[in-house]
Amino acid sequence: MTYYVGVDLGATNVRAVVADAEGTIIGSSKRGTPRGPTGIAITEAVLEVTRAACDEAGIDPEAAVAAGIGSIGPLDLAEGAVENPANLPDTIDRIPLTGPLSVLLDTDRVFLHNDTAAGVIGERFHSERNPDDVVYITISTGIGAGVCIDGHVVSGWDGNAGEVGHMTVDPHGFMTCGCGHDGHWEGYCSGKNIPRYAYELFQEDASVETDLPVDDPDFSAADVFEHAGEDEFADYVIDQLCHWNAMGVANVIHAYAPIVIYIGGAVALRNPDHVVDPIRERVDDMVMVNVPDIQLTALGDEVVVKGAVASAMTGGTGDRARL
Amino acid sequence: MTYYVGVDLGATNVRAVVADAEGTIIGSSKRGTPRGPTGIAITEAVLEVTRAACDEAGIDPEAAVAAGIGSIGPLDLAEGAVENPANLPDTIDRIPLTGPLSVLLDTDRVFLHNDTAAGVIGERFHSERNPDDVVYITISTGIGAGVCIDGHVVSGWDGNAGEVGHMTVDPHGFMTCGCGHDGHWEGYCSGKNIPRYAYELFQEDASVETDLPVDDPDFSAADVFEHAGEDEFADYVIDQLCHWNAMGVANVIHAYAPIVIYIGGAVALRNPDHVVDPIRERVDDMVMVNVPDIQLTALGDEVVVKGAVASAMTGGTGDRARL
Repeated sequence: MTYYVGVDLGATNVRAVVADAEGTIIGSSKRGTPRGPTGIAITEAVLEVTRAACDEAGIDPEAAVAAGIGSIGPLDLAEGAVENPANLPDTIDRIPLTGPLSVLLDTDRVFLHNDTAAGVIGERFHSERNPDDVVYITISTGIGAGVCIDGHVVSGWDGNAGEVGHMTVDPHGFMTCGCGHDGHWEGYCSGKNIPRYAYELFQEDASVETDLPVDDPDFSAADVFEHAGEDEFADYVIDQLCHWNAMGVANVIHAYAPIVIYIGGAVALRNPDHVVDPIRERVDDMVMVNVPDIQLTALGDEVVVKGAVASAMTGGTGDRARL
Repeated sequence: MTYYVGVDLGATNVRAVVADAEGTIIGSSKRGTPRGPTGIAITEAVLEVTRAACDEAGIDPEAAVAAGIGSIGPLDLAEGAVENPANLPDTIDRIPLTGPLSVLLDTDRVFLHNDTAAGVIGERFHSERNPDDVVYITISTGIGAGVCIDGHVVSGWDGNAGEVGHMTVDPHGFMTCGCGHDGHWEGYCSGKNIPRYAYELFQEDASVETDLPVDDPDFSAADVFEHAGEDEFADYVIDQLCHWNAMGVANVIHAYAPIVIYIGGAVALRNPDHVVDPIRERVDDMVMVNVPDIQLTALGDEVVVKGAVASAMTGGTGDRARL
């Protein structure tokens, strides 16, 4: 039998799965991502969940013929490692990945991708038409895209192609993004920034009355969406978010000309009616070229780990012709 | 000896060149693009300038081993033709290109690209470092980009990748683009729209005094740039243009992560101090990722025809390793 390993290394959790030759998942394991002391502890956690997933599948790790990894960044693809990850403690400077996993699995077929690239590989692989031109957008803590054009999953010289959350949507720069620049899409619409944006809109207009707990330190994006249809100010915030999201997606369409866009990430997955549907309704008015099919991902929060497995199965492409 | 043909089919002119094995141009010819009666007349003009360029080079057309074409769009790449060109009379529905040129040159190595894709192939080929990640942006009658990521010149399923002039930069949609949608980059900053934009800004504020001939039917982008440093309103318009151009280029950087961006097109070529330099100065404040080198194209208005030749020499890639 032929087996494949997929790994999803996130800032919060690290997960591994084992799939059989058909891609059916027959073993999985998950644990919290260690906060240190160094990157090696995270490497060891990756190996630990991989061994545990193999155990559950009833195979030796050496039985796997290939592995894919979808990881937080930034990546050093030449070295097969994460370098100075943004969302982990500063003591973690380097997380070796492809080398140690190659040794454990006794294969040099280990494909490393950032998480959005793994996402688009998963979307492509699992999409009925196995499209050559597809974009996966995550609207979560941050916003980013994995992009496949002409059958090629793009990276860019430094791995930064698809950082679409940092496209400027507001020329007046009302909000400052976590990266320090003004007016970026992510600065308004990511899960982390939605409550900040609602707060700033609230401050702008003294006459606003709202049930939103804008002054509560735990005020979150979920609070905003929970009040939809019941609170005029919440509806106003959501309407603004929809406008920025539609602008962002329209810009993605003009950049890459995909035939289909899948949208995932916690904000979209929890609130598809208020995130994905309005984008679909509004982009028509913004787009000059062919408007792609725009769908909520069907892979839920497993899109990265499923993409990692799909990468292992298809040589890093998601192209089912390469099975 | 080995010879290559390059063709630039524009809405105004059609041009062909012949290059030797080193890429040196040894023959060229140019004429106005026929306005009809049908697309076949334009095909014949392409063949006519190709024959004339071969004559000047002192070779038979059959001596060419490959050809590249950079063309107005939209293209039907499978058929090797232009379909319903936007900037030519309505009677012209189809312009066959690769088939007839293959017959004339007696080679099936004819590479068809839209003009911006030919542009990026030319930039890549002629750039000292022959980069794998490069974008060519034209700011001319319209605005668009040719994009090479990871060594792959992108197209998109319908050939529309790189239509970056139609990214929305103004969420308030002050200007309507030629495509009918509001707030697009091209609606403010293309050669065709700069005078319209200046006129609308003038109308907004009754107190404006200016020497710009905003009411003159011949008022043009050139008038705006000619008054730079001498007319407060012209400087204001140019400052606004610089802001939209920097936003557009910042969005291009986040989409594609190029290592170098070349900017061409008549508006940039005639006014580099007011177009390219301010972009370079302003994008730093907008970009989260590595900021690429941003340069005025060194290929001037020959970028498309030189890209077409480079395509012929490198199998449609601009990659000098494929010479």
